[in-house]
Formats: sequence, C-alpha cells, structure tokens
Amino acid sequence: MASSRRRFLMHAAAMGGAALARPSAAFAGPAPASTTPAFSPPELLRRHAANARAAAVATQSPTPDDARYLAMYRDRRNWGRWGDDDQVGALNLITAEKRAAAAGLVQSGRTISLSRIFEPPQHFMTKSELGGGGGFVMDYLGFIYHGSTVTHIDALCHIWDGDGMWQGRDPDVEITTQGAHFGDITHWSSGVITKGILIDVPRHRGEPHVTPDRPVQGTELDAIANAQGVSVEPGDALLVHSGWESYTASGDDGSQGRPGLHPSCAEFIRDHDVALLGWDLMDARMGASQLPWPVHGVLFNFGVALLDNARLEPIAAACAEEGRHEFMFMLLPLNVARGTGSPANPIAMF
Amino acid sequence: MASSRRRFLMHAAAMGGAALARPSAAFAGPAPASTTPAFSPPELLRRHAANARAAAVATQSPTPDDARYLAMYRDRRNWGRWGDDDQVGALNLITAEKRAAAAGLVQSGRTISLSRIFEPPQHFMTKSELGGGGGFVMDYLGFIYHGSTVTHIDALCHIWDGDGMWQGRDPDVEITTQGAHFGDITHWSSGVITKGILIDVPRHRGEPHVTPDRPVQGTELDAIANAQGVSVEPGDALLVHSGWESYTASGDDGSQGRPGLHPSCAEFIRDHDVALLGWDLMDARMGASQLPWPVHGVLFNFGVALLDNARLEPIAAACAEEGRHEFMFMLLPLNVARGTGSPANPIAMF
Amino acid sequence: MASSRRRFLMHAAAMGGAALARPSAAFAGPAPASTTPAFSPPELLRRHAANARAAAVATQSPTPDDARYLAMYRDRRNWGRWGDDDQVGALNLITAEKRAAAAGLVQSGRTISLSRIFEPPQHFMTKSELGGGGGFVMDYLGFIYHGSTVTHIDALCHIWDGDGMWQGRDPDVEITTQGAHFGDITHWSSGVITKGILIDVPRHRGEPHVTPDRPVQGTELDAIANAQGVSVEPGDALLVHSGWESYTASGDDGSQGRPGLHPSCAEFIRDHDVALLGWDLMDARMGASQLPWPVHGVLFNFGVALLDNARLEPIAAACAEEGRHEFMFMLLPLNVARGTGSPANPIAMF
Amino acid sequence: MASSRRRFLMHAAAMGGAALARPSAAFAGPAPASTTPAFSPPELLRRHAANARAAAVATQSPTPDDARYLAMYRDRRNWGRWGDDDQVGALNLITAEKRAAAAGLVQSGRTISLSRIFEPPQHFMTKSELGGGGGFVMDYLGFIYHGSTVTHIDALCHIWDGDGMWQGRDPDVEITTQGAHFGDITHWSSGVITKGILIDVPRHRGEPHVTPDRPVQGTELDAIANAQGVSVEPGDALLVHSGWESYTASGDDGSQGRPGLHPSCAEFIRDHDVALLGWDLMDARMGASQLPWPVHGVLFNFGVALLDNARLEPIAAACAEEGRHEFMFMLLPLNVARGTGSPANPIAMF
Repeated sequence: MASSRRRFLMHAAAMGGAALARPSAAFAGPAPASTTPAFSPPELLRRHAANARAAAVATQSPTPDDARYLAMYRDRRNWGRWGDDDQVGALNLITAEKRAAAAGLVQSGRTISLSRIFEPPQHFMTKSELGGGGGFVMDYLGFIYHGSTVTHIDALCHIWDGDGMWQGRDPDVEITTQGAHFGDITHWSSGVITKGILIDVPRHRGEPHVTPDRPVQGTELDAIANAQGVSVEPGDALLVHSGWESYTASGDDGSQGRPGLHPSCAEFIRDHDVALLGWDLMDARMGASQLPWPVHGVLFNFGVALLDNARLEPIAAACAEEGRHEFMFMLLPLNVARGTGSPANPIAMF
Repeated sequence: MASSRRRFLMHAAAMGGAALARPSAAFAGPAPASTTPAFSPPELLRRHAANARAAAVATQSPTPDDARYLAMYRDRRNWGRWGDDDQVGALNLITAEKRAAAAGLVQSGRTISLSRIFEPPQHFMTKSELGGGGGFVMDYLGFIYHGSTVTHIDALCHIWDGDGMWQGRDPDVEITTQGAHFGDITHWSSGVITKGILIDVPRHRGEPHVTPDRPVQGTELDAIANAQGVSVEPGDALLVHSGWESYTASGDDGSQGRPGLHPSCAEFIRDHDVALLGWDLMDARMGASQLPWPVHGVLFNFGVALLDNARLEPIAAACAEEGRHEFMFMLLPLNVARGTGSPANPIAMF
Repeated sequence: MASSRRRFLMHAAAMGGAALARPSAAFAGPAPASTTPAFSPPELLRRHAANARAAAVATQSPTPDDARYLAMYRDRRNWGRWGDDDQVGALNLITAEKRAAAAGLVQSGRTISLSRIFEPPQHFMTKSELGGGGGFVMDYLGFIYHGSTVTHIDALCHIWDGDGMWQGRDPDVEITTQGAHFGDITHWSSGVITKGILIDVPRHRGEPHVTPDRPVQGTELDAIANAQGVSVEPGDALLVHSGWESYTASGDDGSQGRPGLHPSCAEFIRDHDVALLGWDLMDARMGASQLPWPVHGVLFNFGVALLDNARLEPIAAACAEEGRHEFMFMLLPLNVARGTGSPANPIAMF
Repeated sequence: MASSRRRFLMHAAAMGGAALARPSAAFAGPAPASTTPAFSPPELLRRHAANARAAAVATQSPTPDDARYLAMYRDRRNWGRWGDDDQVGALNLITAEKRAAAAGLVQSGRTISLSRIFEPPQHFMTKSELGGGGGFVMDYLGFIYHGSTVTHIDALCHIWDGDGMWQGRDPDVEITTQGAHFGDITHWSSGVITKGILIDVPRHRGEPHVTPDRPVQGTELDAIANAQGVSVEPGDALLVHSGWESYTASGDDGSQGRPGLHPSCAEFIRDHDVALLGWDLMDARMGASQLPWPVHGVLFNFGVALLDNARLEPIAAACAEEGRHEFMFMLLPLNVARGTGSPANPIAMF
C-alpha cells in the first residue's frame, strides 16, 4: 500500500475519528447534478477547482457523521479480499452461476435501455463519395464521459483518497499521462451481467423526486426492497431511482444542497455485497459534511462498480407495469486499454 | 425513394445486368484488412480516395458475378418490408420472444468478449488533486471507429450506393455535418440481444485462416452450419470466423487480394433472414470484381446490422471446447444521437 | 455566380429594397459577445439554432436601415474586382510596397500582442520518459476557434448569404465535410503584414466601453481617425477598440442588445478600401434590424479579412502612451489546408 | 535546481566525461525524419518507446564525441543568465532595438512563408444554415504539432535531460496533466521578430540535400555564412536549410542514419548567441552516438527557441534570387495557456 498517502485517514484513526481536525477538502466528485448537456474539460476542471477551494476555505469541525463513515470505509474495506493484486473488485461476486441465474430471470424478453441520449461534445461527420452515386459516412467522437451528463461506468482506478486507490495503490505511480496502469476498465471486459434490482424511491415516497433536505438512507433502501418484494444479494446490480428527470425539471438551483444518496447507503451496499451501484442522482450534498466521497467511496474502498447518470425513469415505469423489480441486467463496457471507465448503454431485460 | 440517385442500378437493370458498362468504382468499403492499430482520418480518407481513383481508372467490363449480385441486391431488398419509414431494419426480426429464447440458451454462464482491445487515437488523462491526498482521473477519448481496427457496429445510415441509403433515402438530404438524420444508431438503443451462431471456417477447413484465393462462400456457410449442428434462423446473429489473428500474423501483403467473404454470403444472409453479421475479416477482394459493397451491401439493402472487426478466435476456441456453436449474443450500442454506429464490446454467453 | 442562390437579394432589388418583405433570418453570426471562456460545438450550434428560430418567428417588416445596407452590400461588392477566380480578396490591396512601407513605420521596436489567452477546450499532455532522467512532453490541442472567445481570423469561405459566398460561389458545392474548396485560409499563407490603425472609441467618447444603445457609426470612425491624426488608406488593417474587457466586466445581460459596430462601419470600410477589420466587440445587435450579417458582411461581399476577438485594450493604452495610432501590423495565419480561418496572435510593432 | 535529477551528468562530470559508462538512452527527439503527413499519438508514442528501448539495448561505451558535447552543454548552460526565474531564455537577446533593426532590413516587401501545409489529423467541418440561403461553416482542429510533420515552435518546457528542464526545474513538478507550469509558450507571446539568416547547405555543397554520412558541422555554418556574406549576431534567427524536400523524395530508408545537424552546430549557436534555430531536417543520427538531444539540447540548456519542420526550400530559392541571405523574420506563436509550443507560419520579408 502507498505508505506516503496514508496520512489523512491514519490521522483520523489516531484522533479517534470524531476529533478529526482538518478533513480532506469537501468535494462531491466529478458529478455535480446539472442539466448542462455538454461541457468542456477546462471549464469542468475550473469548476472543480473552485468547489475544492471554496470547501477548503469553509473547512471546520467535521460532523460526527463524517467521522462515522470515514471509519466505516476504513474498517470494512475489501482491499486484499480477492488477493492483493486483484483488479476486478466486487465484480468477483458475479460468478458464472450468478450470470446464468440472471438469464434465468428472463420471461417476456422485454428490454429497457438505461442510457441517456449521448451527445458527444465533439461529434463530426466525414462523408466520402464513391463512383456511381455510392458513398459512406463516418463520424468522429470526442468526449470525456465522466461528470454528470453521460451514462457511464467508473473503473476501479477512477478515484482515491489519502489512503490511495483500490488496494491502496499509489495514484502517482499507477496513473500517468499514458493512462491507468492498475484497475483500468479492461479488467471488466467480459461485461457486467447479473441480477438487477430497481429501488424506486420516488414511487415509494409518493413524491416526484428526492429532495435535497432528505437524502436516500440505507435503511430506506432496506424498507423499499422489502416493500417491493425483492432481496438484495451478493453480486447484484443495485439501481437506485431518485427522480433525475423530475428534479432537473424542477428548477432547483442547488443552493440548499443536492439530492441523492446518504453515506448510509454505502453501508447497505457493503452489508449486502452489492457488485454495482447504478444511480440517476449521485451523492447527496448537504449540511456541514466534509466527506470527499460520501457514497462514491464504495468504488475504491469496496471495489463496487459505479454506473453514473443512468436513466432510470423508464425502467422504474416498466417495473411498476410488470409488477416486478428484478430483471437480467447487462452492461458491456468498451474494452479501452488503460481507460478509467466507459460510456455505456446498460440494458434491463424482463 | 431518391429518384435522382437511381441511375446506376437502374442502368444496370436496363442493360440486363450482364451488359453493365460502367459499374460504380470498385471499393472495398472503409475497412481494408490491416494490422495498423490506429489511423488518422486524413490518412484514411486519402487511402480511400486513392483506392477509388485507382479502381475508376481500372474500370472495365463487369464480371458476370458482379452483374448477378447487383441484381440479387436489387431484387431482394427489404426496403418497405417493415414500413416505409422504418429505421430498425432486420433487427425487427429480433422480437421479445426471440430475446427470451436467447436467454434460454444460457447454461453455464460462461462469457466471452468479442471485442478487440480498443486504443483510441486520442486518449488523454486529466488528473486532479483534492485536499488530503484524494483525487480523481478522467480520460478523454477521441476516435473514428469505422475502418478495420475497432470492434464496432454500423448503423443503417453508414453506406449507400447509387440507389440511395436504407429505404432509398437520399444521403445528400439525410446526412449533414450535423449528423445522420435517418437510420442513426439510436434506433438500436434497446440493444441487439439474440441467438448467436459461430461459423468457424478455419477449423472446418483445417487451415489457420481464410486465404485470398478462396473466399468464404454462401454454400460453405450452409455446410459448416450443418457440420456444427446449428440452424440459422430469422433474427439470429451470424458470426463468421475467418482467422484474422492468424492472417495478420502471416505477413500477407495483400497483393493477391484480401481474404474474407464472397458476395454469395449476402445471399445466404438474406435466405436465412439473419439480423446481424459479425466478422473478423470483411468483404473478400479479388479478381476483376468491381462491386463497391460486395457483402457490406446487406446493410443498406437488407437492413442487416454489421459487427465489424469482431474478435472471434476466443469464441471459436470456446465453442470447440463447449461442443456447441450457439449461445446468447449481446451487443449494446452507445446511444449516440445522430451517430453512424458505435464502438462495442459484444459478449457471448453459454 | 450561383444562380440558384440569388433569390434573396435579387428579390430585394426587384422590390426596391425598402419594400423587402421577408429578409433572411436575423442572425448575428457565430460570435455573440460572451464572457464564457470555452464552449462545446453542440452547445454553440444549439444556441445558434435557437437564435435563428427566434429571429424567424419575430420576422416582420424590415427597417429602412436594413434595406439600405442590403442594397449597399449588393451594389458595392468586390466580386470579380481581382478576377473571377480570385481567392485573396481585399488582401490584394496589400502590395509588397505596402508591406515595405509598414515596416518603415517601425521606430522603437516595441511590440504588443493583440491576442487573448488561448485555452483550447481540449488541451491534454502526454509525457514520456527517456533513460537517465530525460524526457519530453507534447500537448494535444482540440478546438473550434470561431465564436466569440478565441482570437482568430476568418477566411473568405466562412460565411455567406442568399447570393452565395465570396465571388458568388455556392456553399453547397464549395464546402463539404472534407473542408472548404474555395477561399480557404491557405490563400493568405504569406501573412497579413500592413499598416495598422487603432480607432479607440472608448477614449474618444470618454466612456469605458461602447454601450448597446449607441453602436459605433461609420461617421464616428472618420471623426476619431481625424482626431487621432491618422489617415485610413487602401490595404490598411483597421482595429476598432470598443472596450470588451470593460463591457464584459460590467455584467450587462444583453437584454438591451449587444454593443458593437453599426452597419454604417461597413460602408466606411468599403469607402477606404480597408483590407482587414479587427475588433473586440463585433456586430452591434439592437432594435428591429433583421440583417443576418450587419458588419460581418464585409467578409464575403468586399473580401475584407476579419480578425475576431482581438485583445485591443493593451494596444489602445500603448497608442495613448506613444502618442501615435499607427504601427506595423502582423498576422500570420496557420497554413491549414481547406481551413475556414485560423487562431492567431497578431502583433503590433511601433 | 532539481537536485534529484542531476545524477546523470554529475556522474559524467565525476567520471571525467570520457569515462561515462551508461549514458542516457539514445533518442533522437520527437522528430524522426519522415514523409508521413499525419500521425496519431499512440502510434508516435509507440515508435518513440521502441526507439528508446532499442537504444537502451544497444547501449555501450559512449563515444568521445558524446562526452565532449555533454560536457559542452553542461559547461556553457545559460541557466540563471537572465535571472533564476527567467522563462524567456535566449529570446531575451531580441531587444526592441534588435526588432527595429530587423524591420530596417526590409526593402522590397517580398514575403515568403516558412510553413509547410498544415493538415491536422482531426479536421472536421460543421455547417449551419440560416434563413434565406445564408449560413456559415466552422472547422474543428485537433492535433499534436510536435513530431516531424507540422511546422512549429518548441517552448522552453518541451524537453529535458537528467539535470532537468530549462533553469534546472523538475519536470515532475512543473509538468502535470493540466499543462506546463514553467517555460510555457505564453512567455513568448510578443512574438519572435528579429533578423533572420538563411544558411543554404545544399547550394553551398552543390548537392540536392544533406546526406546521412555527412551531417552539417558547426564549422560549415561558419564557412557558409562567410561565403554568403552574412554575419550571425546575438539574437538572430538562424535557419539551416538541409534539403528536406529532396531528401524525402530520395526514398532513403534511414537505415544508414538520418541526415541533419551535428552537435557541433550547438556550439556554433552558443558561440554566436543565436536566439532561434529553424531547420527542415533536425538532429543528425548516425554512428555510435548515444546523445539523447544532440542539437535539440540548445532548447533547455541555452534557452534557444526551436522552429521544427520549417519549409526552407522556397526561402533558399528566394535568397539566391535576391542575392541576400538576411531578412526580417517573424514568428508569432499562438498564446496557448500552459502550452508546450505552437504550430506556426513564420514569414521572411525582404
């Protein structure tokens, strides 16, 4: 493990957690809720830097909650669980048997895409004519898929905290301008095919979308799963519908925080050995919390794949129609050498 | 249909086909067999233009074979078969029942990726530090996936001949610098999930790879399917293994033509109502043929999806091990607005 | 000339100009004043389309001013002035003698850059190590320079109206996905080196910047030139300082129109045979005008090069210090094959 | 200075230079002579890596020449000469007086571009229609300009050896994925305007181009300058014509080395305090030399700007016609924030 990077949480541990004096800069990750359909990298990076600076200025005593979840992440890490050099993470829980069982869930063959429309910021055509009126067109795509717009999967290498990346690796060693040399997306090239479960928070609450003042709690996931009659088991893909379409249409300006999942959901995910978390609204941001990766932390601490910016309203509607909330889930990441993730078009099949 | 674009094949018809005097420039499509792992658009376009010019210069009397397959394409088009405005094509043959039956093929849950490693020509990292040693990395991908390198699916709009695009649409109207306005990849956003069949030509021939002097024939597909004990049915995904890895390692310089599929395979595909053709070596190029789209023509004439540059050696090996040549096939194209196709990581599951 | 494209202004002529019933959609060109430091093409295109639609909806009777300037452009075009196939335009006015005379203006050798900082939306590093601690870094730049951010020069092919491009050429023929085949930037590869004149509107008005309600008039350019003691002569580069820095800092929301140059400036430019217009705020937008290219029209009608988004505050300050408003002007466009312009770093030397 | 990076040349010094046991991997810089008009970054990087590995394998005793030039670079560095934090380098030698004197060289106003045609690997068009037949076209450019194709200038930060970058700075600190934080191209934003001198090696030798077996020597530069009647003075731009067009047309396969400049030219450059070196063929590669940066070393050791891939045949022909080999030289780099250089279209004016 990266000994030089451990000072942050080691310090937290030495201080008993609750006494943590200067937590890492509060930062919600590369995925602020936004309706902006496209962004340029410099703009994004500037926004990130500004957020981080603002947070650093505002740093004060950490909340007891912060200390609790930092300790939870530290104490329950999956580092080493599948071998010290493992780069597959919680997707190890999806065995061949698990995949075959997922296929066994299929009844009608109805499919629902979980992807938003993808509009790459650079999308250009080149058309060529052949003789006799024939021809062809090719398109150039250029994009950063991370952020809060494009439906994509995060590879294990995507984020880290003061203790390091997945397995405690050092990002200064593993990430160069040439790419990610540990935990890149090619380790998931055989796809994520497993049982999918949809947790429909708005329908359960009877509200159009999750609100900033009331993040989704881990206990709520339990309650909704029970109400829906589904059981979250090891290796499952957990999809939490928070109502992104409705929230973005509401015109909320974010000044009261961002709606999404509370860190207690990370505990639920670890308790049930979930393999993949899919969501339409990501980590909730509210109150005095200074956690850098409130729920995103499941990625590098537990090895859980993240499906960001999933389009979950259609699958939620379909589950309601079908009267069932589990299905065969398929996500086939592009096999990008040294890549930090992949845009994706995940499919649910009933 | 695009009346102004019909002169080429209409002329061919008037001349009785065999008398066709000036066929379209011979052109093998945007996918010359090559081991080059990456290319830049101008280079590709220059190569294409040079090929097209060379062919135009060399134009002479068409072969009887050319006339036969031009007539075959013209006479058996699927334009209008699923309605005049249909943009789904032969994927209409993949019904919900067909998908459910494909899932029913799953026994062990073993999965095999059909994708090559993807190395985008533009692949760059941006790394950002947060406080306390935390941080994240994002990558920028820039690429044209068409060509002979990247595993990808062609959308219906990708190519055309003198009669027009799929359904006879006019490419001058439907394709602008803003993208494809008919037959784009979003029409296949619910994925291609169906029964997959692997036709293993090298194993059947007892040779490491298909050679330029002996393209794969439609009758051979029949013979191999029979020998393998599989039946090609409407809506199936047909994967033809020609031995790309072995061929590219052989150092063949292409001067004797390119190995691949003979136009008679297009007839087989139409006879069996195949929904998708996947291949590792594409249209064969040899002899005096001047056909612009020898087998690629199944795309805009029949509405058959093309999976170009599939990696088929591992699935061929797995089929031999498993003693079965059919499986659940999954290909989930990125949902790119106005896109002409998508890079892909298709998966076969036993 | 492109006969099929002439209906718009021909119609205007037949109607006597003032009776013009349906002018082209009002559109300010690809350069709305903005403080946004970077943009993605889809966003820009959407904005443009929205502008154009809004304008089309609002179309009503054209103002007498519109009719006057449409007639002015039509009647005073430079098409054919330097030969029917000329692709150099008003830069023909910059003779070798003119350049030599410009060099003769140099006294102190003081230089001022007229370029803003350039932050390409795609700007990525690749660093490679050699043995012994050596290495090198290369950067990838990806950008569209047109718009209101990047300092750049427009080539003759960049814009057109219903009568066509420069020389009346048809954009449907001359512009393909492969590039511009007439009037591209390579025709200006020997650089724009001439006498430069700075017209300092804010200093003359005694105000920090031009305001939306009071665009810069052609007569005002005359008055300022006289007051500054300079004479605008054929082949000169005319730089009009409107106070971009101050305007963007003012927080004006654009609801009362955009400050900039009135179409009467186009008449001034034609009267004096200016070769290049450089500006920091572009075409003014106000009132009921429906002109698509109020001042941008000098590009394709007169063949005058446009230097958009120049940084003119420093040169304005230097002119005030030096007590002279003319200098040697240098702009050396990148020699981009088939390009529609070039980012630039123009230099003024005293 | 970067103490941790000095081991390579410090070791060389301790060993007396001639006893240097393991020099840095031989590497010719990012600019192997090539006729390839465009390249993709991964391809380039792979080629570089292969070169570097091949060289590392071949490492043996350094030649006496290697030792001599390593010592020359070390002993005559300009680090600190213009202050410890200076980021302008030898361009400090181009004073305002020097620029004014360069303008004073202008007689006829004849201009010659020193740029090759620029074909960006990513060059795409987006065309938009307005009402009434009007419209506009914008192009997207994407490229890495470093390498042996594009005419460009290297910023001070571009390369380094074991002792560090310009001024001894540490590339691990100064170069991040966000860009170059020391010695970037913006420090040269006021342009490189000075006296230019053309050294025409092929005409002097009476041969069409420099050959691999006979690199250009520093003493030869002296001899040619004398024969041409020019004097190389502090702050000059030195352009060395080696006959790139003729060499690339010759079909030489590079197996006998690459033609270009011998490290003794670096000594000449330092002796005469040249500010910029422009060349069409770069560092010669031949024999047993293991120098990583034979002549490129003038960049980070002396602070001399490099103009790579200049097109020098036209200016050589013009100098012969004019009977003079000095002129006003202008190079105006794009003002790219944190950039490692810039593509350029330098101009010579007589």
